[in-house]
Amino acid sequence: MLYIDRTSTVPLYLQIYKQILDQIREQKLSPGDLLPGSRALATQLGVGRNTVDNAYSQLATEGYIQPEPGRGFRILALPRLVTVREDPVQPQPNTPPQSSPVQYDLFYGALSPQDFPFSQWKKELLAVLADESRGEINSYPGHKGDALLRLQLSRELFQTRGVLCSPEQIIITSGLQGSLEILCKLLYPSAGVHAFEEPSYNKARFIFQRHNIPMVSMTLDECGARPDSLPKDRLVTSVYLTPSHQFPLGIRMPIQRRHAFLNWAVEHNAYLIEDDYDSDYSYHTNPLPALQSIDTNGRVIYLGSFSKSLSPSMRMAYMVLPQALAQKYDDQLADYNCMVPWLIQRTMAQFMANGHYHRLVRRLRTRFRKTHDLLQREIRQLSPDIRIISQGYALKFLLAFPPHMTRQWLMDRALEQGVRVYSPERFWQDPSLCPPNLILLGFTGMDPEEIPLCIQRLKTAWFPE
Amino acid sequence: MLYIDRTSTVPLYLQIYKQILDQIREQKLSPGDLLPGSRALATQLGVGRNTVDNAYSQLATEGYIQPEPGRGFRILALPRLVTVREDPVQPQPNTPPQSSPVQYDLFYGALSPQDFPFSQWKKELLAVLADESRGEINSYPGHKGDALLRLQLSRELFQTRGVLCSPEQIIITSGLQGSLEILCKLLYPSAGVHAFEEPSYNKARFIFQRHNIPMVSMTLDECGARPDSLPKDRLVTSVYLTPSHQFPLGIRMPIQRRHAFLNWAVEHNAYLIEDDYDSDYSYHTNPLPALQSIDTNGRVIYLGSFSKSLSPSMRMAYMVLPQALAQKYDDQLADYNCMVPWLIQRTMAQFMANGHYHRLVRRLRTRFRKTHDLLQREIRQLSPDIRIISQGYALKFLLAFPPHMTRQWLMDRALEQGVRVYSPERFWQDPSLCPPNLILLGFTGMDPEEIPLCIQRLKTAWFPE
Repeated sequence: MLYIDRTSTVPLYLQIYKQILDQIREQKLSPGDLLPGSRALATQLGVGRNTVDNAYSQLATEGYIQPEPGRGFRILALPRLVTVREDPVQPQPNTPPQSSPVQYDLFYGALSPQDFPFSQWKKELLAVLADESRGEINSYPGHKGDALLRLQLSRELFQTRGVLCSPEQIIITSGLQGSLEILCKLLYPSAGVHAFEEPSYNKARFIFQRHNIPMVSMTLDECGARPDSLPKDRLVTSVYLTPSHQFPLGIRMPIQRRHAFLNWAVEHNAYLIEDDYDSDYSYHTNPLPALQSIDTNGRVIYLGSFSKSLSPSMRMAYMVLPQALAQKYDDQLADYNCMVPWLIQRTMAQFMANGHYHRLVRRLRTRFRKTHDLLQREIRQLSPDIRIISQGYALKFLLAFPPHMTRQWLMDRALEQGVRVYSPERFWQDPSLCPPNLILLGFTGMDPEEIPLCIQRLKTAWFPE
Repeated sequence: MLYIDRTSTVPLYLQIYKQILDQIREQKLSPGDLLPGSRALATQLGVGRNTVDNAYSQLATEGYIQPEPGRGFRILALPRLVTVREDPVQPQPNTPPQSSPVQYDLFYGALSPQDFPFSQWKKELLAVLADESRGEINSYPGHKGDALLRLQLSRELFQTRGVLCSPEQIIITSGLQGSLEILCKLLYPSAGVHAFEEPSYNKARFIFQRHNIPMVSMTLDECGARPDSLPKDRLVTSVYLTPSHQFPLGIRMPIQRRHAFLNWAVEHNAYLIEDDYDSDYSYHTNPLPALQSIDTNGRVIYLGSFSKSLSPSMRMAYMVLPQALAQKYDDQLADYNCMVPWLIQRTMAQFMANGHYHRLVRRLRTRFRKTHDLLQREIRQLSPDIRIISQGYALKFLLAFPPHMTRQWLMDRALEQGVRVYSPERFWQDPSLCPPNLILLGFTGMDPEEIPLCIQRLKTAWFPE
């Protein structure tokens, strides 16, 4: 028995549809049963015949009933749905319970909200959105990204890093991991392996691991990664390097070693992946030009990112491919959609074209240098036993403590005082190789004024009188 | 011999640095040579000693010179850089030469700029940017994406698609391909294979191919993919399905077949990947609830996207994982950064919370239905020999022509009249299986008023009097 509720906001045909569906589910209507003719049902319910037809048509489209010529609609049989009990999942809290609230979080990678260029970014966003006839706002941004941003980048990279390339060689990606996703697809499968520095950035290794690419690690000396530590008996397809500032040890690769790697790459027909992740932040000397700038044989893939020179929340990075590889990308990966919103790309292009980007980087460099220098001074005063491993550059300190002070103890004691410091252990592919007395301090999210108080707490935690 | 140009804007120390570097490169200074003492050189050039020290220090940092106690700096030997000639690359033009300008491009996937909600989007963007103290603007957006957007989505998906999930099961991704990138990492390596519909969306297949995941294809019948066409002798880990509207054939999978697939998945401990890519656009009947909505065993992964309900240029999509898989994602893929800018995510969350999203989808559906119905009528009038395969739904037509009219001929003739139509060949993994007389027409970028003129041209191209 069906009924119609004329006071309901649910359309009449949906009311009929829903009631018949319920009857099928509750097995009041069985497979093989015929539904009443639509004309008869319409009269009975006092609705138009169209209304009933619409309800029947929806049920037929979904496969619950089937028309039978001359007889109306018949209920169809439905395989019974199996139900097994899923293993109950215990959701785990993401953050460990804390003994006291964290007042100073020395996380590496975050910037402070006050560093974001709100007014210029808004201005450029609105300028891009002002032209409402632009087709790009409702199209896919192509497989390489916005042409104007790639043009701006080709100029910027030449000026600041000596990178020589055409916009056609540049690909806009959603962060370093986005760049690596593409490289995994472009360089592999191959018969060769991928080589990493040990230690190196864990979130970069992760992408290669998850593409099931075989990996080897290189050992480091005071000049950075050693090409002679690459395996002699295996083909190497690509090598991941951080020549400006080894991650996380901070070694600057000198020109001799750079030449050695470039020659090695030519000899072995391999690619060098140069991750130039923080070259904007050299405080007291100029950074060396990029490895890419002295490569005359198309062996260097250059990776950069806006995470540390605009915001990590923008998820925007880029890579410069050698010409032959850029051509291969066009040929083989044209089905890969660029993953960065066009609005963000074009706003960034305007932001660069209008000089805001240069000013922003200069402002950030000044601010971070101040924080760096102050923090360095304070750490030196904290104890003569702390050795600063990575300094003079970049956005973090790597500190070595006397052997008896282990990182878990250091982290726990600091947390008791409301300061969160971090273990660099995850940067080692083999975590047992990470010296047990290292601690990582990121300082870009800090206000310089907070430093003395924060250091005071670390003193209480680590060197109580 | 060094000289100083006091009228130059280049800092003095950089002038000295640069000239010494040039002399090393031109071999006027040889490995082993000693540089003059900094005091002596400073006096000679009439600059401060600090200036020379800075230049020397930069050269030493880069590895060109080395300090020798008591004797000053000595030039270091540099391995000669090998240069091989790179194979010259002939850049290929991206678009084929055209016989006449294209006036109507029936590309599937683009929307028209007039469909973008400029004013509400601007309003919500500015509202998000108004709070300048928000930490999210300068942090990484976590591995799952913005919490507010995930909350909005969990409500929206329940209301419109019957999808039942908590925000914890939702992951924000940069488009369908971004979702699949994650699934490839989450579900593989496994001993099993991935199964695709044949035909299916080529850009989805592409991601699995490039992760080197072994694949099999399923055949289709009038109810969509057939579970009995899955290989009996191989383990199947995941199956890609488009139950709402098979891509590209437009088949709506009836409830019987849905139950069959769900039961098959439980029995084989496999995952069904439900790509619900255009369920917002059912014009004359209601769409079936999502496959996910009747899955009680955690076997369905639900994929959705904003490409067709906001803009393809925003590169924003999402997926709903079964609880156990969401937990596995937390455990194993926490190193994967969410790839969508936080600003875009939060703006979208506000856009939904304030009701703009519902209104936008309703507006788009009305507009596309009009275009769809008009175009359908016009195609029917064009020739009784054209069979419309995919209709009543979605944003494209798939048309079958009489056997003697092949797609290349159809495309070429249309292009001569300034209309670009597309081949669906790429959707077949084995392109030889694509019937030679099919043509794909996307209509979402079109203005309804353009249709009669566009059809007139197609008539001239294909059915001249």
